[in-house]
Amino acid sequence: MPIAVETFFLDPAFEGTLQQQIQQMVAGGILSGRFRPGEKLPSSRKLAHHLGVSRITVTLAYNELMSDDYLTSAGRSGYYVSDKAPEPPELTQRMSGDTVDWSRAIGTRFSGGIQIEKPVDWRRYKYPFLYGQVDPTLFDRQNWRLCAVRALGQRDFDSLTADQMDRDDPQLLEFIARNTLPRRGILASPDEILITIGAQNALWLTAQVLLTQRRTAAHEDPSYPGIRSILRQSRCHRLPIPVDADGLPPDLIPPETDVVFTTPSHQCPTAATMPLERRHALLDRARKDDFLIVEDDYEFEMSFLRPPSPALKSLDEDGRVIYIGSFSKSLFPGLRLGYLAGPAPFIREARALRSAVLRHPPGHMQRTAAYFLSLGHYDALVKRLRTAFQDRRRIMDKAMAQHGLEIAGAGTFGGSSYWMRAPDGVDTKQLAETLRARSVLIEPGEAFCERTARTYRHYRLAYSSITAPQIAPGVALIAQAMEEAQAGVIHA
Amino acid sequence: MPIAVETFFLDPAFEGTLQQQIQQMVAGGILSGRFRPGEKLPSSRKLAHHLGVSRITVTLAYNELMSDDYLTSAGRSGYYVSDKAPEPPELTQRMSGDTVDWSRAIGTRFSGGIQIEKPVDWRRYKYPFLYGQVDPTLFDRQNWRLCAVRALGQRDFDSLTADQMDRDDPQLLEFIARNTLPRRGILASPDEILITIGAQNALWLTAQVLLTQRRTAAHEDPSYPGIRSILRQSRCHRLPIPVDADGLPPDLIPPETDVVFTTPSHQCPTAATMPLERRHALLDRARKDDFLIVEDDYEFEMSFLRPPSPALKSLDEDGRVIYIGSFSKSLFPGLRLGYLAGPAPFIREARALRSAVLRHPPGHMQRTAAYFLSLGHYDALVKRLRTAFQDRRRIMDKAMAQHGLEIAGAGTFGGSSYWMRAPDGVDTKQLAETLRARSVLIEPGEAFCERTARTYRHYRLAYSSITAPQIAPGVALIAQAMEEAQAGVIHA
Repeated sequence: MPIAVETFFLDPAFEGTLQQQIQQMVAGGILSGRFRPGEKLPSSRKLAHHLGVSRITVTLAYNELMSDDYLTSAGRSGYYVSDKAPEPPELTQRMSGDTVDWSRAIGTRFSGGIQIEKPVDWRRYKYPFLYGQVDPTLFDRQNWRLCAVRALGQRDFDSLTADQMDRDDPQLLEFIARNTLPRRGILASPDEILITIGAQNALWLTAQVLLTQRRTAAHEDPSYPGIRSILRQSRCHRLPIPVDADGLPPDLIPPETDVVFTTPSHQCPTAATMPLERRHALLDRARKDDFLIVEDDYEFEMSFLRPPSPALKSLDEDGRVIYIGSFSKSLFPGLRLGYLAGPAPFIREARALRSAVLRHPPGHMQRTAAYFLSLGHYDALVKRLRTAFQDRRRIMDKAMAQHGLEIAGAGTFGGSSYWMRAPDGVDTKQLAETLRARSVLIEPGEAFCERTARTYRHYRLAYSSITAPQIAPGVALIAQAMEEAQAGVIHA
Repeated sequence: MPIAVETFFLDPAFEGTLQQQIQQMVAGGILSGRFRPGEKLPSSRKLAHHLGVSRITVTLAYNELMSDDYLTSAGRSGYYVSDKAPEPPELTQRMSGDTVDWSRAIGTRFSGGIQIEKPVDWRRYKYPFLYGQVDPTLFDRQNWRLCAVRALGQRDFDSLTADQMDRDDPQLLEFIARNTLPRRGILASPDEILITIGAQNALWLTAQVLLTQRRTAAHEDPSYPGIRSILRQSRCHRLPIPVDADGLPPDLIPPETDVVFTTPSHQCPTAATMPLERRHALLDRARKDDFLIVEDDYEFEMSFLRPPSPALKSLDEDGRVIYIGSFSKSLFPGLRLGYLAGPAPFIREARALRSAVLRHPPGHMQRTAAYFLSLGHYDALVKRLRTAFQDRRRIMDKAMAQHGLEIAGAGTFGGSSYWMRAPDGVDTKQLAETLRARSVLIEPGEAFCERTARTYRHYRLAYSSITAPQIAPGVALIAQAMEEAQAGVIHA
């Protein structure tokens, strides 16, 4: 790529001749690493015109730079940065300088905290028991493409390009209100829905609106790691509640709680589904102690062993439940689309906050999703995923039983993962590293758990990204590594 | 669309027969507005299978509902919600309930504040002197479409679908680092850049990382309305600094300032460009008083009257400047893509915060932009916009001179708008309303200004969305309304 003429500016404060200034600009660009060997400079005519100087000034500067080995010339074709030009020093120092104390300048620190690790190159691993990435053999790329192309058309020009301020795509909003939510037994008008950049964004907005430093939020333990970092950042008082085989136990929620975050359809990561009786009990507690509930209706679509339970929100007569839905798991996470449904006064504040933080999700993604949903491709895709996952789960069950791997949570409704328990003394973080070297990816439990234990016995095994034939040999490798780890424990 | 069978659930706690429960579910769906007249119910066979009840139970329930006028049957084709079915009550009450006091339940309020109003249907207006929306006659829809389709291809499957956690699209990052920033004289490595959901998101992230309740931020007055709501939400101490014809005056920045937000390329909304001497003076002040500078490099691309000035960041030897770029104005705002460039310790915190708030901008938008930029379409588009804007500006100048409209800020480098001043006593908010009824859209100054004056004399006139032939008659209508308003002032 040639170096753009706009890169060059004259500085009125420069002390020296114009020619010297041009030489210094070019040499400076090379020494700073902005111009690289082999890149073509603007022609002397073009640069002279741009800077408003005479062409001979530029030519003289270029010639001087050639004799200093900064530039070479390829006859009539122009001037290039020379391969022999002095090399730039290390980059990173330059941007930071050393006069700013960044440990002081940063007002609020957000980094740190344990995240689930997902290798970018996970497809290179033979046995990726990885959660939440898309299996290309199942996704309906063809129809997604057709919908995206339609959303790029003349008729949708505004939905693609316009600054919508704080508004959502009306077609997507309408579909969610008319079709998606009613299937979960929820009735909402457009001012009770907000489109978000994935469920993560919906959770974050909700926490920001409902919580303050003086409020208390209860959440499940173990839990989705994202919710813990969101609650930490909100600086509220945070209460982790241990879950059991039926999910979050309402009896353990302290009366001073202001907001409860829960995943009733598919507890993350234990895969427990909260029974209907407990849902009623949770709502009763909410009414009694006057707290709000945030329902992350995580993976309800992946019910293939029995029909999905009704959403907590559909049982909520008081308007105490904020409902969060997502297309990340059923479509794909790179889409970054989710939604909030809740009472209008709450949605109004979440919308105002979203507007300040990011305005609105890109119009093109919203319109493409609206087409994909309304043309019925989404339902067909979910059906295909269910069939494939059911098949894989059968194979998983058999292989794990055969090798005696212990399942801590399987999910009675289906889903796409198991919550597993390693034998006593086995550190699953170490286990994951060992397995990774053998082309097997598992998710150690650490990122999901509240307590900072020395070792973490739990881990998650997902079957959403691994193909059926890879499951049995992959499980065998896990069992083998587990035995080795146990042997290490016994010997130690 | 038929009513999905997943809508129906049996409640073990229901007191009554199965048939009664089915009747109640259907009637409840109709009465709540979830099922609408003309919609088809699941067949009795399908519903019976789904609920695990006998088919005759469903048929009996359907027949009962028919005799109550909830349903009709169209012979063998099935059951439908009847047109004569009872109508649902008003929607909004339902979601809110009335047991939650939302004025108390909301922990932090984000709504309120004055926004620029952009009518959704602005294209229906004959004379839209509106800022920041895309003119379809100038945008290169064809090549955008080609790039988007390419980004939907098999090779880019991961970039479209994957959960990238806190990562950016490597191709877009590389292009910004190698081409976009060097043109502004800025050298940054990938860990010194963060892709954001537009410049708004970049500003917001920056404010959250750098500011606290105990810190002081200075910003321009008048200013981009978005920055004021961002700073208000950060709860920092906020200092509006009046701008002059050269933009932000460094001498007026109090020494206790921690962070300065500025738009040196094109002061929003006055269109002033900060001269090079003042840029140096601002950097000197920053060093002397140890504050940071956030440079929103707003609309630098639209320089057609003279070459753009170097970015403040390119003159920054200390690493005190955080640089914000955007593709919203030069490509389109619905894209929602911008970027931050700054020292790695700062970018690390901004990235961690972005990850908690929304993970990452949708992969497809990032990859499409990367193609559009790297294939040179972006440069061609910017060139076309410059030519068109220069032409429109000439017509604007002529028409405004002819009608004696007073320009408060025109921008010496080009741009796409004028900052205007109405005669004494004319309220531009009222003026905008009058003009809107005459198919003319202008932006009253209220949203940009700090002080709560009784009337606002300023307004903004943009020529980015109005076509050349509409300019002269549009300006004539503005002048006419202005005269009427003045006459009103004189008579009052």
